[in-house]
Amino acid sequence: MQSPETFPALAYETSLQLNADGELRHLLTLKGLSRDLLTALLDEAQHFVSQPGSATIRSRSLAGRTVANLFFEPSTRTRASFDLAGKRLGADVLNLDVNTSSRKKGESILDMIYTLQAMHVDIMVIRDASAGVPAYIAHHVEDHVSILNAGESDVSHPTQGLLDLLTIRQRLGKFENLIVTIVGDIAHSRVARSAAEGLHTLGVGELRLVSPPSLAAAPDDMPYARSLDNLDDGLRDANVVMALRIQRERIADLDGIPDSDQYFEQYGVSKKRLQVAAPDVIVMHPGPMNRGIEIESTLADSPASVITQQVSNGVAVRMAVLEWVSRTMASR
Amino acid sequence: MQSPETFPALAYETSLQLNADGELRHLLTLKGLSRDLLTALLDEAQHFVSQPGSATIRSRSLAGRTVANLFFEPSTRTRASFDLAGKRLGADVLNLDVNTSSRKKGESILDMIYTLQAMHVDIMVIRDASAGVPAYIAHHVEDHVSILNAGESDVSHPTQGLLDLLTIRQRLGKFENLIVTIVGDIAHSRVARSAAEGLHTLGVGELRLVSPPSLAAAPDDMPYARSLDNLDDGLRDANVVMALRIQRERIADLDGIPDSDQYFEQYGVSKKRLQVAAPDVIVMHPGPMNRGIEIESTLADSPASVITQQVSNGVAVRMAVLEWVSRTMASR
Amino acid sequence: MQSPETFPALAYETSLQLNADGELRHLLTLKGLSRDLLTALLDEAQHFVSQPGSATIRSRSLAGRTVANLFFEPSTRTRASFDLAGKRLGADVLNLDVNTSSRKKGESILDMIYTLQAMHVDIMVIRDASAGVPAYIAHHVEDHVSILNAGESDVSHPTQGLLDLLTIRQRLGKFENLIVTIVGDIAHSRVARSAAEGLHTLGVGELRLVSPPSLAAAPDDMPYARSLDNLDDGLRDANVVMALRIQRERIADLDGIPDSDQYFEQYGVSKKRLQVAAPDVIVMHPGPMNRGIEIESTLADSPASVITQQVSNGVAVRMAVLEWVSRTMASR
Repeated sequence: MQSPETFPALAYETSLQLNADGELRHLLTLKGLSRDLLTALLDEAQHFVSQPGSATIRSRSLAGRTVANLFFEPSTRTRASFDLAGKRLGADVLNLDVNTSSRKKGESILDMIYTLQAMHVDIMVIRDASAGVPAYIAHHVEDHVSILNAGESDVSHPTQGLLDLLTIRQRLGKFENLIVTIVGDIAHSRVARSAAEGLHTLGVGELRLVSPPSLAAAPDDMPYARSLDNLDDGLRDANVVMALRIQRERIADLDGIPDSDQYFEQYGVSKKRLQVAAPDVIVMHPGPMNRGIEIESTLADSPASVITQQVSNGVAVRMAVLEWVSRTMASR
Repeated sequence: MQSPETFPALAYETSLQLNADGELRHLLTLKGLSRDLLTALLDEAQHFVSQPGSATIRSRSLAGRTVANLFFEPSTRTRASFDLAGKRLGADVLNLDVNTSSRKKGESILDMIYTLQAMHVDIMVIRDASAGVPAYIAHHVEDHVSILNAGESDVSHPTQGLLDLLTIRQRLGKFENLIVTIVGDIAHSRVARSAAEGLHTLGVGELRLVSPPSLAAAPDDMPYARSLDNLDDGLRDANVVMALRIQRERIADLDGIPDSDQYFEQYGVSKKRLQVAAPDVIVMHPGPMNRGIEIESTLADSPASVITQQVSNGVAVRMAVLEWVSRTMASR
Repeated sequence: MQSPETFPALAYETSLQLNADGELRHLLTLKGLSRDLLTALLDEAQHFVSQPGSATIRSRSLAGRTVANLFFEPSTRTRASFDLAGKRLGADVLNLDVNTSSRKKGESILDMIYTLQAMHVDIMVIRDASAGVPAYIAHHVEDHVSILNAGESDVSHPTQGLLDLLTIRQRLGKFENLIVTIVGDIAHSRVARSAAEGLHTLGVGELRLVSPPSLAAAPDDMPYARSLDNLDDGLRDANVVMALRIQRERIADLDGIPDSDQYFEQYGVSKKRLQVAAPDVIVMHPGPMNRGIEIESTLADSPASVITQQVSNGVAVRMAVLEWVSRTMASR
């Protein structure tokens, strides 16, 4: 076997995401994107939102374009979301399950990318367990190809961040006066990181990160946020509470992490615990949920929950991003 | 690991399948559907039948609709059949192989369904090894979503039942004067059950179920049918003979089940055994076949065999059902 | 378990590939196809070639047709190439991963083919590890179905051969005055065999096959080529050098095969070794590459390399073949 591939720890540079005219070409991270750009992306996504049961918003703006979903980690919901987003814009969508194919044969990831590029794939949607992969690929593709990060190790998940922002904006309007609390395995969460970056740029009132001490963010990570290990302190007056998925198999392996029942007792978001939050608090979760561990099951199904709205917004956000980078290509 | 999900043994209620106006909204089982509705579905399916080599019948009646094929059991033919049916009606089709994704992470099946619903999936085609899953899902989805059962444990496989009915009607016309004999592992066969339910409703002359005693239906299951363990008795004057797939790996494990050679000797449908049947008898099999075990290979390829016609009808039936439930949605 | 399926060692007959009017109906092998037909296929493919970054060439010539990609061996690039080729011509494309489905249940490959045929699949793209499978299938399908070989054991990979021919013709024009050298595991290479057959028909000046003695072609295989075991001799004045993939796992198992470092030393194509070749030599590789084993990494990325051009041409060639056999069908 070849030795495992390693990827340079590229600094995410705004210049890598934006072209010479300052337009979005790749979406790798929300870090460094301007408030104006984030707001414009949310506005665009809002156009693609339709009500449950009503006809989906569709267009042919990506007709003739090819989108490849290149998932090196298994995924149902994010893959399905990008798949539908591409199809509803008229793109040809190529779904590649890469675990079972060429990467096994020792082909480098770049050679696989060059191959797709040579097949005239315009937009590559990448999920990978290794940090740095999307930026590494973006750094190497030709000018006419866009890279979208669909989940990168514990680093970044920018379309998830955007759908979280969109959901908050739909429910609560402006960000400036909001207290947002993220609860769970902060240390390993790309979801928390992207949400935090977006919220920071949009000027959120206060951002709190609640976790067991062993799962807290590093001190210099997200310095604009306040880290706590007490859930009640974290929930006090919160307008938005986002519970993160706990991987129970990981919990058993780590010292200092409570088991499932203990976890729910200490860090599970429940109706009772939320009594200290703002009266109109909304509850978010990126899914898939472990009901009864990180979130109380009845809370997940209550009117305070915006979890399915997040999913709907996910398709809308991905349509907006696909259309946006496609427009950037066309303007070359 | 989470404990395995269990599903309530829901009584299949006609009211769950039909909307307030009595129109078909979900297709979960043929049981309880009226003769008029079954006949109308067969008539609709007949419109989608085309001759081998001629152009396929197509329409755009599902353009803008999203169909998700959610298969929790592996399948080639049924999945391909629904995939093509959806595409030939202009739908966006999402194929989800769920063994390798979220269900592993402990997400409940309902949360997966709610996620797809939030992505504006209009029709979910479900195959599952557990009894009760399609009805359980149908009970929980919103008004604008339809559930189609694509194979449920040993309980129900209604589109297979419809394609069997359509094939019989095409070849032999009316059902009233027919003797239909189903041979094989009746106890575990969702195919037998759905065919029997449909045939009963359409007033078949006589329905016989032939199997080794250990694989016979329970006494109160399909009481309108006659159970036999002697193949020659079962085939006498039969107009239709349907052989069922025998899973040889299961045969070795069970006491009282003959091995493959013995099985063919006692229960294999062959030209010679068919000499006691009606002169124009037709032979059916749901596939995939084990030639030389449940059916003689030369018989499967003979003019009496309607096995490939069943497959063609399968696409037509699925197009009809997709279009029908889609029309029910639109009329809300 | 059923005993493994075996396939008759069918002589590839031109008559199996061509219909009564001499038009291409199946593409199984380049062997026996006329120079005129090969040239016409390359001309047609050239129409589908577009420049990187420019819009892809598209048509609706396969609208209403169904293409099934039936891959019994895993593949990323060839499967993706056929998938995109079909979609860019407007076909409905059905991708079947057959390892995980019916073939496991003991269904014969022909029954699977008959099933797809009954679903009105017009064109079946077949990859299989067993020699003879595509011809065996082509021999059994109905008149209105075309079979395309997408890789057959070590025997044939005709669309790969065509894309290699197209790439050479684009870069170097005529074939008559060219020296073409193929380097690597000749004995087991379907890529080498198809390229050699096409080059021979098109009248290549000289064809050299370089390999370790244990991986050389049998003496009566490709008798029009010259087998060598010294790379420098093989590269002298060569206009085209094609390096083949070495499966390192196989190398360890076989006696007389050098290990990876030794292999590169003796048979790796590098800039330095190419100094004896023609000044405008082009370097080809079918992918996926093992950089540093069969080919020097910097050479693969140099201007002499036409490896990504091969990939682009692959889509164009497959579009041409799909359109061609579709036209043959329509003219019945």
